[in-house]
Amino acid sequence: MEVRTSGRGFSNITRKVQEVVARSGKKTALCSVFIQHTSASLVIQENADPNVLRDLGDWIEELAPESRAWLHDDEGPDDMPAHARSSITKTSETIPVMDGQLALGTWQGLYVWEHRARPHTRRVVVHVAE
Amino acid sequence: MEVRTSGRGFSNITRKVQEVVARSGKKTALCSVFIQHTSASLVIQENADPNVLRDLGDWIEELAPESRAWLHDDEGPDDMPAHARSSITKTSETIPVMDGQLALGTWQGLYVWEHRARPHTRRVVVHVAE
Amino acid sequence: MEVRTSGRGFSNITRKVQEVVARSGKKTALCSVFIQHTSASLVIQENADPNVLRDLGDWIEELAPESRAWLHDDEGPDDMPAHARSSITKTSETIPVMDGQLALGTWQGLYVWEHRARPHTRRVVVHVAE
Repeated sequence: MEVRTSGRGFSNITRKVQEVVARSGKKTALCSVFIQHTSASLVIQENADPNVLRDLGDWIEELAPESRAWLHDDEGPDDMPAHARSSITKTSETIPVMDGQLALGTWQGLYVWEHRARPHTRRVVVHVAE
Repeated sequence: MEVRTSGRGFSNITRKVQEVVARSGKKTALCSVFIQHTSASLVIQENADPNVLRDLGDWIEELAPESRAWLHDDEGPDDMPAHARSSITKTSETIPVMDGQLALGTWQGLYVWEHRARPHTRRVVVHVAE
Repeated sequence: MEVRTSGRGFSNITRKVQEVVARSGKKTALCSVFIQHTSASLVIQENADPNVLRDLGDWIEELAPESRAWLHDDEGPDDMPAHARSSITKTSETIPVMDGQLALGTWQGLYVWEHRARPHTRRVVVHVAE
């Protein structure tokens, strides 16, 4: 599965992953989601108020700021902060499937969290097992 | 599975999850634990000295403080810090099962980490697969 | 599986885990990796420029510094920072297996992240399921 991000921020992939679950035909299962990158990550967060995602983005930029004296900056000032932010968020998430549906809470959405400044195409692998 | 938290802090759910594993009758398996919330999370941490959990709680309050100027504060000053703290801890954990037991290390306990100030009832889904 | 760390830093275990996957004979599967400790963790990060890992190590030392007034210091000043750093990195990672290979991205390596100052022997459990 490929996800086109629009630079720093969040892409909601809940529906796309749900479609993979539906195609698998499995009713009670485990859905494992994996992102094949180290400068973008996964996160399950609130899907209602967009300010939650805005706050999260601003806050993690302060935790791992571009202004820090990073050794690794081959691809620019947003390179190493992206690795740092990825390292404390998720590379894999495992979500239960009940009645053929992702068993997410009411307010939960699954997002690709892009940590690089510019848009990227990110590869996400979804595996559904009984 | 429902867990009643007593406000900010940790609820040890190791025994409850082990009971689900025992009821499944599976001996070699994988136990996946998922929390259906974005303002409480899961963490596997030390189960011996309670000061470890106290330190963790105090420290993460400094990482994502209530005093920061958050945009999202619909449910009060502890609302957005709870989302931030959840985003860097776990929504899912996957624990191997050996001989019908969770294969945790000697000092490991599985906790629901409540990030809201007041008590909440949190839903946790446990899935055991071979 | 046992991993001997050389104190604070990263041990690449990608090849060792891939060997377990190969021995399982499974082609399409899910590989779950679990570390049985609360002062060392797992992380999937860049495997090319060693400065990425150096930066990550330095940065997380600032996020959870030894100089903070921690209550828990039974085993020295590096004790509680190790728990804090573990709590925001991973205890479990779940990696898809395709064609009998870990489906990692080109630049991804799986590491044990040692947070204690001195070398330790760390136990990691690998489970491969279809």
